Amino acid sequence: MRILDNVTSPEDIKNLTLGELKQLAGEIRSFLINTVTLTGGHLASNLGVVELTIALHYVFISPDDKLIWDVGHQSYVHKILTGRKDELRGLRSKGGLSGFPKASESPHDAFDTGHSSTSVSAGLGYARARDINRESYDIIGIIGDGALTGGMAYEALSDLGASKTRMIVILNDNEMSISQNVGGMARYLSKIRISKSYYRFKHSARRFFETLPLVGASAVRLADGFRERLKYALVGGKLFEQFGLKYIGPIDGHNIAEIIEYLNFAREAEGPVLLHLLTKKGRGLPVAEINPEAFHGISPNGDTPALSFSKKSGNILCSIAENNPKITAITAAMTEGVGLENFANLYPNRFFDVGIAEQHAVTLAAGLSKGGMRPYVYIYSTFLQRAYDQILHDVGLQDLPVVFCVDRAGISGPDGVTHQGVYDISYFYTVPNMQILAPKDLCELSFMLEYSVTATHPLAIRYPRTCTAVDNGRQIKAFNPFEWECLNDVKSKYVVLAVGDRMISIAYETLKTDSKCFALYNARSIRPLDTAVLDRLKDKTVITLEDGIRSGGFGANVLLYLSEKFKNPNVKIFAYRDGGIEHGTASELITEQGITAKILSEYIKKH
Amino acid sequence: MRILDNVTSPEDIKNLTLGELKQLAGEIRSFLINTVTLTGGHLASNLGVVELTIALHYVFISPDDKLIWDVGHQSYVHKILTGRKDELRGLRSKGGLSGFPKASESPHDAFDTGHSSTSVSAGLGYARARDINRESYDIIGIIGDGALTGGMAYEALSDLGASKTRMIVILNDNEMSISQNVGGMARYLSKIRISKSYYRFKHSARRFFETLPLVGASAVRLADGFRERLKYALVGGKLFEQFGLKYIGPIDGHNIAEIIEYLNFAREAEGPVLLHLLTKKGRGLPVAEINPEAFHGISPNGDTPALSFSKKSGNILCSIAENNPKITAITAAMTEGVGLENFANLYPNRFFDVGIAEQHAVTLAAGLSKGGMRPYVYIYSTFLQRAYDQILHDVGLQDLPVVFCVDRAGISGPDGVTHQGVYDISYFYTVPNMQILAPKDLCELSFMLEYSVTATHPLAIRYPRTCTAVDNGRQIKAFNPFEWECLNDVKSKYVVLAVGDRMISIAYETLKTDSKCFALYNARSIRPLDTAVLDRLKDKTVITLEDGIRSGGFGANVLLYLSEKFKNPNVKIFAYRDGGIEHGTASELITEQGITAKILSEYIKKH
Repeated sequence: MRILDNVTSPEDIKNLTLGELKQLAGEIRSFLINTVTLTGGHLASNLGVVELTIALHYVFISPDDKLIWDVGHQSYVHKILTGRKDELRGLRSKGGLSGFPKASESPHDAFDTGHSSTSVSAGLGYARARDINRESYDIIGIIGDGALTGGMAYEALSDLGASKTRMIVILNDNEMSISQNVGGMARYLSKIRISKSYYRFKHSARRFFETLPLVGASAVRLADGFRERLKYALVGGKLFEQFGLKYIGPIDGHNIAEIIEYLNFAREAEGPVLLHLLTKKGRGLPVAEINPEAFHGISPNGDTPALSFSKKSGNILCSIAENNPKITAITAAMTEGVGLENFANLYPNRFFDVGIAEQHAVTLAAGLSKGGMRPYVYIYSTFLQRAYDQILHDVGLQDLPVVFCVDRAGISGPDGVTHQGVYDISYFYTVPNMQILAPKDLCELSFMLEYSVTATHPLAIRYPRTCTAVDNGRQIKAFNPFEWECLNDVKSKYVVLAVGDRMISIAYETLKTDSKCFALYNARSIRPLDTAVLDRLKDKTVITLEDGIRSGGFGANVLLYLSEKFKNPNVKIFAYRDGGIEHGTASELITEQGITAKILSEYIKKH
Repeated sequence: MRILDNVTSPEDIKNLTLGELKQLAGEIRSFLINTVTLTGGHLASNLGVVELTIALHYVFISPDDKLIWDVGHQSYVHKILTGRKDELRGLRSKGGLSGFPKASESPHDAFDTGHSSTSVSAGLGYARARDINRESYDIIGIIGDGALTGGMAYEALSDLGASKTRMIVILNDNEMSISQNVGGMARYLSKIRISKSYYRFKHSARRFFETLPLVGASAVRLADGFRERLKYALVGGKLFEQFGLKYIGPIDGHNIAEIIEYLNFAREAEGPVLLHLLTKKGRGLPVAEINPEAFHGISPNGDTPALSFSKKSGNILCSIAENNPKITAITAAMTEGVGLENFANLYPNRFFDVGIAEQHAVTLAAGLSKGGMRPYVYIYSTFLQRAYDQILHDVGLQDLPVVFCVDRAGISGPDGVTHQGVYDISYFYTVPNMQILAPKDLCELSFMLEYSVTATHPLAIRYPRTCTAVDNGRQIKAFNPFEWECLNDVKSKYVVLAVGDRMISIAYETLKTDSKCFALYNARSIRPLDTAVLDRLKDKTVITLEDGIRSGGFGANVLLYLSEKFKNPNVKIFAYRDGGIEHGTASELITEQGITAKILSEYIKKH
């Protein structure tokens, strides 16, 4: 009989013994490995927080106390402990559990996350609300060392430190640079620091500390062999203390008893506390421990896409860079995801991974461009939202030839509502001087990247991770990035303008039943529009297909143009409806949004 | 004969003596005071950087060396020294000098700025380009202590520190908390720190230092009365050193000789250096020294608007907050600008100025909302761009009733291309669940704010600083935030849908010549559209007027709706063209964009 089988809410672990908690950790690990390898998802990071999550629910009372998971990909254990264990098998599937915290799933999910570095801001908001309302609950933000590189976390830590309100920030440090030596000295030091009146403990806690032997900092300083760890503890702590936070750590993030002990201390502190935990990604699964990046996000049964826009993009850039010393590439903690591993290896001095810092990434690119280089910014569509101002203000207004390789564009699928890349066409369209392209297949992506080297304005090339078709119609004419390519040159009242591989594939599918039912264009240039084509469409019914939202998108801009040009245009736009798009496979979700060959075919029959 | 009269390029100051440089500083100060009080602009911050700017141009060779002014409002002295002295009289006027650095004005402007905290990213881009290209120029980013609160600066400093490349960051610290005592000990300390092998100086520099008496840190530590400054120097430095930057300072930012000396040291350092200067905003103009915030941005001849949306908004919020303890207000370093001074004084525990940290501001609001409060985020339209992702991801997707009071919306005028608030309608329209309102006058703003207390979704209320009209037509029916108000109920083929006070005023002006020429609606709800009105416009010519860009804007969304509803809609959209909008007065620029009563009138006659 597993302990886990009897855990249906956090209440169920409150009375377990330490031994039972440890057993539970083991059971959760097995359950995670068995389940997530089937469903796909973030395995390694969840294996890293098993003990932490158990300890949190042991010490705090959720949902009264608020647990805020930064990014949120590490919330599976939390979901298991808060009554969603059985639903984990449907993780990331349409209608199933989200891979991120969702208040709509459970009151235990205090704040919906997905993008990085929001937890301290959100937690401080809760804390201030609590103080104003004279409530007394605890707020705990759990943030990884990666998420801490985001500038927003710094803004929030500054404010939190100055605020002096009660909030616990748990730094879940996967770096493990000194993990082997944790415990012993570092732990002791930390206790000393706590005991030396850093905190005004409740009476009982203070008494507990008075029983510990005190070792003066100067004596410790002399102890040979501990210098590195001492430096780490003090220097690491100093930085946070300069923000006004009390620092505790580093402590062993896989020792439940120790975490519980420190969480109880942190809970009694009067101001903001940062508790520094050292954990190991993939803990308990040897292959994941050795290569956590490979297990960061896994696909169901480990399948990888055969036709990867990401890999193709990175590899083409490598060959371009071979003969062009001006090519530089920038990414924000997504080297593998965007296909830049080879580039990073081949051209280390022209490759910059800035961490989870999209804002800096974009303005860094602007600076590189001003300095005479040709920078390529590789960021997922959804994460690039965070650099909207920098794209507009630093790249767009200065009209710099920075190239944005916008990966995971369109519906990205199982990561769900926070990760859909469906807004970029609309926000790029507001940026002065920005050209926007979408390839119809891998071959066209090559042409676009070759063109990009000569572009004289900001340029975005958007594509999903996986290409739907090897070959979406042969290039008949020489590739021209400003011209739309006619893929089905028939006389028809209907003209379909399709953007990107997914939409062109849907259009082709429709043509299978009736190859004459519409003329088809590959609208590879989302901006500027190919007005030479549009100007010929006066009395046509123009149908646009795009993998993005309606407002400010491709179809909306086609309509704007035709309305200005001809008055009374007849345009039908297939694009995504207002409102978030939840998780599922890309094709399920595109279907749900009403963009299918069948619906397109029916529309044409009816109108 | 003034020295300034002979300065037409930075070359002209290279051979001046220290005495002459000091005299030049005095002359520039007088010139600034005389000029900027006439033109309007940022006086206090420029008075604070006179000596620094002179020293920079004395030591470095612009434009080979790159000076990057963060925010850039403090670049007037730089403009004076780089051949634009005579043009300063046209500052911020249409066709005249920009109030910010502009590469299109001068090769000495190495990077266009306007928004905060971009200089370190841009400079690091230049530095990496330089290193790859094996060039050797210097790069100097000048950033204020305010701009340093932006998370983007932190992202960039982390990357810079890790990069080990040569770049000088000058922290222009206006706080002046210990300014009176600068020089003496702090200065000495800093020299000691430099001399103690922090830097590998060129031979000559090292020799120079060896002539100085060395005082051990421990001796210094004992010196009574200097403890505070010591702490400041060491602690301040430590923080930056943890980022991997060498820290020098704090030094007196009004002592030209000292700045030159330290700039020369910094220039010889091998890695990134942070030089910490203490300066006084408004230096040399007693009234500005006493109240620098009042002189931060001044209008020509000090005029202040009679009808201020900002003041009205802040004051209404005060009265709402009186009886509603859930009201909280957040701003990002713009308390006076957005009219929240009274709120801040009346409700200090419900008011949060987070510094230049728009991202944190928005997610803080999301957290407050989750904690049961009703948060109001007061940020200028242009600066809110930086929080686009937080608006979408943290507020929009969670559908939280956070209210955005979007000040300086529409064309903001003399601050120019980086500050126009013309994108917000388009980016708000991409945000799930977001309602967008624009008041026609001060009275309607009151109604909107009263409504906002009961709103159940994210809400943006956008308005310019100054209201164009006391009263844009009396409210006949009870205010309904979802209904458009008919202001001119005539039978006409033409129906004008106008958004906000400026556009309604233009429409009214058109009606003066022919009151029957169109029906006029106050389209107070930009989103959702009032479909009850639109559904009645089947055979009408619909004309939309808005203070924002075309793509994804109000008119574009009206067109989308009518196109879907009726096919073949006849819609004429008056909105701003693609591309940035330079400086000038708001009315000059709106006219230049082709939105005037005359043009509207002519359009109707012709169509």
